[in-house]
Amino acid sequence: MAERLFYLPLGGAGEIGMNAYVYGYGAPGKERLILVDLGVTFGDMESSPGIDLIMPDVTWLEENRDRLEAIFITHGHEDHLGAIAHLWPRLGVPVYARKFTATLCRLKLEEVGLPTDTVKIVEPRPHVIEQGPFSVQFLPVSHSIPESAGLIIDTPAGRILHTGDLKLDETPVVGDPFEPAKWQEIANEGQGIKVMACDSTNVFATHPGRSETILAEPIRDWVTAQKNMVVATTFASNIARLRTLADAAIASGRKVCLLGRAMRRMVSVGLETGILTDFPETIGPDEAADLPRDKVMLIVTGSQGERRAASAQLSRGRYLGLSLKEGDSFLFSSKTIPGNERSVGRIMNALSELGVNVFDDKDGLYHVSGHANRPDIERIHDLMKPQIVVPMHGEHLHLREHVEIARSKGSIAEIVTNGTMLELTGDVPRVIDHVETGRLYLDGNTLIGAMDGIVRDRIRMALNGHALISVIVDEDDNVLPDAWVELMGLPARTRGGDDLPRHVETELAEFLETANRKTVADDKKLDEAIRKITRQVCMEEIGKKPEVTVIISRLTAE
Amino acid sequence: MAERLFYLPLGGAGEIGMNAYVYGYGAPGKERLILVDLGVTFGDMESSPGIDLIMPDVTWLEENRDRLEAIFITHGHEDHLGAIAHLWPRLGVPVYARKFTATLCRLKLEEVGLPTDTVKIVEPRPHVIEQGPFSVQFLPVSHSIPESAGLIIDTPAGRILHTGDLKLDETPVVGDPFEPAKWQEIANEGQGIKVMACDSTNVFATHPGRSETILAEPIRDWVTAQKNMVVATTFASNIARLRTLADAAIASGRKVCLLGRAMRRMVSVGLETGILTDFPETIGPDEAADLPRDKVMLIVTGSQGERRAASAQLSRGRYLGLSLKEGDSFLFSSKTIPGNERSVGRIMNALSELGVNVFDDKDGLYHVSGHANRPDIERIHDLMKPQIVVPMHGEHLHLREHVEIARSKGSIAEIVTNGTMLELTGDVPRVIDHVETGRLYLDGNTLIGAMDGIVRDRIRMALNGHALISVIVDEDDNVLPDAWVELMGLPARTRGGDDLPRHVETELAEFLETANRKTVADDKKLDEAIRKITRQVCMEEIGKKPEVTVIISRLTAE
Repeated sequence: MAERLFYLPLGGAGEIGMNAYVYGYGAPGKERLILVDLGVTFGDMESSPGIDLIMPDVTWLEENRDRLEAIFITHGHEDHLGAIAHLWPRLGVPVYARKFTATLCRLKLEEVGLPTDTVKIVEPRPHVIEQGPFSVQFLPVSHSIPESAGLIIDTPAGRILHTGDLKLDETPVVGDPFEPAKWQEIANEGQGIKVMACDSTNVFATHPGRSETILAEPIRDWVTAQKNMVVATTFASNIARLRTLADAAIASGRKVCLLGRAMRRMVSVGLETGILTDFPETIGPDEAADLPRDKVMLIVTGSQGERRAASAQLSRGRYLGLSLKEGDSFLFSSKTIPGNERSVGRIMNALSELGVNVFDDKDGLYHVSGHANRPDIERIHDLMKPQIVVPMHGEHLHLREHVEIARSKGSIAEIVTNGTMLELTGDVPRVIDHVETGRLYLDGNTLIGAMDGIVRDRIRMALNGHALISVIVDEDDNVLPDAWVELMGLPARTRGGDDLPRHVETELAEFLETANRKTVADDKKLDEAIRKITRQVCMEEIGKKPEVTVIISRLTAE
Repeated sequence: MAERLFYLPLGGAGEIGMNAYVYGYGAPGKERLILVDLGVTFGDMESSPGIDLIMPDVTWLEENRDRLEAIFITHGHEDHLGAIAHLWPRLGVPVYARKFTATLCRLKLEEVGLPTDTVKIVEPRPHVIEQGPFSVQFLPVSHSIPESAGLIIDTPAGRILHTGDLKLDETPVVGDPFEPAKWQEIANEGQGIKVMACDSTNVFATHPGRSETILAEPIRDWVTAQKNMVVATTFASNIARLRTLADAAIASGRKVCLLGRAMRRMVSVGLETGILTDFPETIGPDEAADLPRDKVMLIVTGSQGERRAASAQLSRGRYLGLSLKEGDSFLFSSKTIPGNERSVGRIMNALSELGVNVFDDKDGLYHVSGHANRPDIERIHDLMKPQIVVPMHGEHLHLREHVEIARSKGSIAEIVTNGTMLELTGDVPRVIDHVETGRLYLDGNTLIGAMDGIVRDRIRMALNGHALISVIVDEDDNVLPDAWVELMGLPARTRGGDDLPRHVETELAEFLETANRKTVADDKKLDEAIRKITRQVCMEEIGKKPEVTVIISRLTAE
């Protein structure tokens, strides 16, 4: 049977975050594989309480690891490389990335005691990495983190352009400018672009994307206009923004103090890799606290309202000896990611209560996006003229909209979501398989499956409360009638003012005294009966049915 | 001592939702009181799992109920009247509202078996309700629900204008148009406006608010352009919007089917009170299912992504015999309230997966807000020229911004948050007291305090999981070494593959065998020791410390 080329997203297709895309080439079932990106997404209280990180289930890849050649990481954002330390041991192949990204990768591996020499630093195009049937070049693109790359993947079946996350910024402050002529060249080489897998994040933004450069003046004007302490927050990995913020501080006679671990780490990686040049010297929090308030600017983590980040700490009062006061100013040089509105709002309001003047990007002055907007996406299509388009990195709505754009440009385009294996060899793409995918949750230090029921039980306890019943059955199969009831997350008193656990105990005692021996002898039956009574009594008394755990202890004759 | 006038928000000042504002007039400590609005806010998984409704803690008002004259409800939104059925029994005074609002109030009271004749229907200004020292007129205002009202409250200390929620719509489709001349008249009567308590919800929207009327054409055009089934969702209480949507359906030859309890209730109250005239006849879901798809429009509940509403049900597949298909169209004629983005996004994506074309207001064509935007707020200030402004119905940030506006107009303005008693008698407002306020949670059918620890425990169980330990101490104070461990919301296996509950049991058995008699004899000490070991073992094995409940059963010699 002829060899074939396929695309198989394991994460990122049908969601924003958790990017992981597989390409395969070879005889059916024996295709050699590469993986592009291995990112995480973040948990939330609504769907995954207690879970910090969520990553793609790579079981399929693990089962086929003898066919996996390498992992390529497009850029250093957590949703593209955050799972590397957790999942690399299951895959065990070399990881290729540009220097800045590779440095971040190595730090992650180092933290968990994994070897870092597995991460190879790659020069951008025209340098080529050959892996099995794949020849891969890193194409510098502009984004909101330095040294982002698209991948040009040449295969016997044709050229794939995997854009990664990107915007078309010709003056990005830090990092690689968008150069249309270079893109043109790539489109014109050989047979041109057979397949383009393209970022869909901002497909609903109808105005052309704006350059990082345009922020310098408004941010400088803003800092200069403030009379007391100035604080700004943004993503730590947005090195260009840090640069813009720091430059504004210096221009208005302020010293810069970085707060938050990620902030200090990113600046140090930026300096170490030579990305960040001329960054002003920074001061520590002690020194910042000693300076007059109008001589300092804090650049801090926590633009998304993260509870433990510097922004949140400052909004609650003191942090590392620094505290905000009436008349200070706080800038969110960032966009609130959908879903984080409440957390960010909480911090803004807490700052407002301290008397701090809060500024954000609502007038479009203090932030630009790192993703291609709709007109930029159209420009990419026009430049690259791909035969086939597979929109990636987007929710279903985004992928759908992107497919419409591609079709209007004359490309063949399909919505492909996680787990769908799409053959790209012929003129028309074709679904050839569906692979089991899913999500892994990092819980404490343990990876659990999203469908294991563990998180479902947590959600149920959170919604319904938890009633614990302990009963003891003696040597002669008599239940001691004093069942013990503990409630957690439930009202202690009924509407009528009764003690709820004692009330449940009374009702259980009544049942246990008369329960038939068959029920008592059978753990499962006894458990069910007790559970049912407990839920009924609670429903009657407080109008809700709790989760119930019954512990039956059987005494044995010694 | 001289009589005085005060303002005391119990809810709504420092938050959007849960409105409840007290005004007092009389000798200090003996002021007669009125309450304006008694609303709810909605719980969320992050801060109040398992809680459907949140309402203001009215303990202070209950303690002073002999001084309370009446409750005035400005309009029928849940955040202004939703707590009436739950809290009225604690207050027991007459409730005044305009007919539409009063009808909704009575339905709520009726549902829980409370007398409905406590709700008095009020005609708008010039009709005056005299209650103690207060003379109150209902001033019709436009908003996103019919018969909204501001209150003109005349007191011996001067005139208060309590705007309620409002917009300045001169052509509101349904309900009362904004008539500047009437407002002018109110400002010019007597001494003019002493105090204006004014809606702050949209203070950050910088463009002038738009009229409901402008939606008719785009919505009609949209419906006409759709080829298959059409569905639209909006707030059921937005009767004007229902009218606009239904008119569009009829204009394009479709019949209207209302789905969702709130939708049917609102339309029936609208018809009953004479608010809704010429509403087309509607059909039931059976009839809708039998008609050709291009002859039907469903108008459905669930614009905020509510899990059990019609929108969510339709996005999951069938609902009442109706199901959506490839090529159908779904319009969110609504704005997503901050915090609901994820829920709404989930439904939109689920619809997209069904092949449904999803439309929303991102281009500003299919929704207008019910609140005054910043230029409208400025216009209100200019018209009413209040001496003192207390911004209400807003988060701290909103109140702060609104104070700036008021001051720029020459008014005296203060940020007043829930629990702050502000005297308004003199020329300058003055804080005279702080009253304990807070939130009550409706949990099942029971009202619990937000600070009772119940919800805190639920959140902890959701984040950390719950370990239950049962130990038995025999008649001679020996602990039976086989402690029983049940885990809920925790992984069953350690990273190393061990059975986690058995592992905890082993560790506990080791401790119990050697535990000293003092510890064993003391419930509290034994509980603490077991809890500590359990948490330690879990931390070592899975990297997290669960919540622990220990049940100690002591056998007594019979």
